Amino acid sequence: MAEEVKLFGAWGSPYSRRIELALKLKGLQFEYIEENLYNKSPALLKYNPVHKKVPVLVHNGKPVAESLVILEYIDETWKHNPFLPTDPYEKAKARFWARFIDEKFWPAAKKAMASRGREREEAIEEAQQHLKTLESELKEKKIFGRESLGFVDIAAHLLFWLVVAQEAFGVEILTEEKFPAVHELYQRLADEAVFKECMPPKEQLIAYLKVRLGAWTASK
Amino acid sequence: MAEEVKLFGAWGSPYSRRIELALKLKGLQFEYIEENLYNKSPALLKYNPVHKKVPVLVHNGKPVAESLVILEYIDETWKHNPFLPTDPYEKAKARFWARFIDEKFWPAAKKAMASRGREREEAIEEAQQHLKTLESELKEKKIFGRESLGFVDIAAHLLFWLVVAQEAFGVEILTEEKFPAVHELYQRLADEAVFKECMPPKEQLIAYLKVRLGAWTASK
Repeated sequence: MAEEVKLFGAWGSPYSRRIELALKLKGLQFEYIEENLYNKSPALLKYNPVHKKVPVLVHNGKPVAESLVILEYIDETWKHNPFLPTDPYEKAKARFWARFIDEKFWPAAKKAMASRGREREEAIEEAQQHLKTLESELKEKKIFGRESLGFVDIAAHLLFWLVVAQEAFGVEILTEEKFPAVHELYQRLADEAVFKECMPPKEQLIAYLKVRLGAWTASK
Repeated sequence: MAEEVKLFGAWGSPYSRRIELALKLKGLQFEYIEENLYNKSPALLKYNPVHKKVPVLVHNGKPVAESLVILEYIDETWKHNPFLPTDPYEKAKARFWARFIDEKFWPAAKKAMASRGREREEAIEEAQQHLKTLESELKEKKIFGRESLGFVDIAAHLLFWLVVAQEAFGVEILTEEKFPAVHELYQRLADEAVFKECMPPKEQLIAYLKVRLGAWTASK
C-alpha cells in the first residue's frame, strides 16, 4: 500500500524535532510541513482541533497528536527498528521515564531559562534534582542509553535543547562534572548522524530561543 | 506461575481507585495496601522513589508507577478483557483522550474546586470548555463510552469525583442539560457494579474532599 506520511511541525519546536528524529530512525519517507506558530494553518487546526499545536503526524489522512502518543503510534505501525521493548515491564519503565522527562525535568528546565533571581535559582535546583534522578537511573539500571536509540533516548533529545539553552541564557544546569552519565547520553545523541540531520543549527536556535523565552517571560 | 499482585493506594485518591477498577475489570486477585499520605510507608518510598506517590502496582516484586502507565501494563500483562483496541490508530486515539482527561480536564476541574471568585469562574469556564470537547467526541466519534469499559472510560472515572466534588463545594460544572453525552457516560460508570465496589461512599468522600481541597487552597 502506498503510504502517505505528513508531519506538521515547526523548526524551533523540540517536540516536532522529536517526531522527525523518530521518522528518520525508522527510515520512513515523509512530507514535512513547516507551520508558522504565530499564524497556524487551517490544516493544522483541522488535524489538531483540541490542542492546536505541532507536531501532528498525518498518516494516510488520519491525524495523530501529542508527541509521546505519536512515538508509540509510529512504533506500532512500522515495527522494524523498534523503539520500545516487547516485555510489558520494560515497556512500562520506558513509558515512565519518557513521561518523567516531559513532565518533570523539562518544565523545570524551561522555567530556569525563563525566570530570574530566586525563582531561577529554585528552578535550577529542581531541574538538577531531576537530572540526578536520571543520572542514577542511567548508571545503575540502564533502561535507556543503550546501543540503538530507543523510546526514552528519543524523549531525552530534550537534553540537546537544554545544552543550547544553557549557552543562550548563561544558565548552568547540566555539566559533565556533575552529571557524567547524562552528559554522555547527550553527547552520544548529539554525535548521531540522524540526530544532526534533525536538529536546527545551534546558532540559529540560540537566537530563536532568546526571542521565544523572552516573550514567555514578558507574558508572565 | 503464582502471581503476586499488590496495589499501594489511598482510598481518597482517584488514581488509586482507577487502578483498583482496572484490576477488578480484569478479574484479578490482588492485595490492597492502604497508605497514609501524611506518613508514607518505607515500602511505598522504596517502590516509587521518584514520585513518592500512590498508586503503585507491584507485580511479583516489580513496581510500576503512574496510573496511565500502570493501566497499559495491566492490559499488556493480562490480555483478557482488553482495555485498549488492537489497531494502532484506535490505540493512539485512546491514549490521546486519556491524557486529555488527566492533563487538561482534571487540573481545571480541581482548580475550580480549590479557588474562589474570579479565579474559580475562569477555571469553571475552562473545565466546561474541556467537557464540551469530550461531549462532541462522545457524540460524534464514539471512541469511548461503548459497551464494555475501555481505557478512556477507566480514565473518565474522574467524572465521578467531579460530580461528588461539585456537591461538596457547591460548584456547577457538569450538568445533564449542558453535557448530556458526558453525563450519560458518568451515569453508566456510576451504575456499574464493579465501579460501585471501587469508589468510596459518597458522604465519606465529600467530607474528605473538603479537608484535602481546603488544605490545598490554604497552601497556595
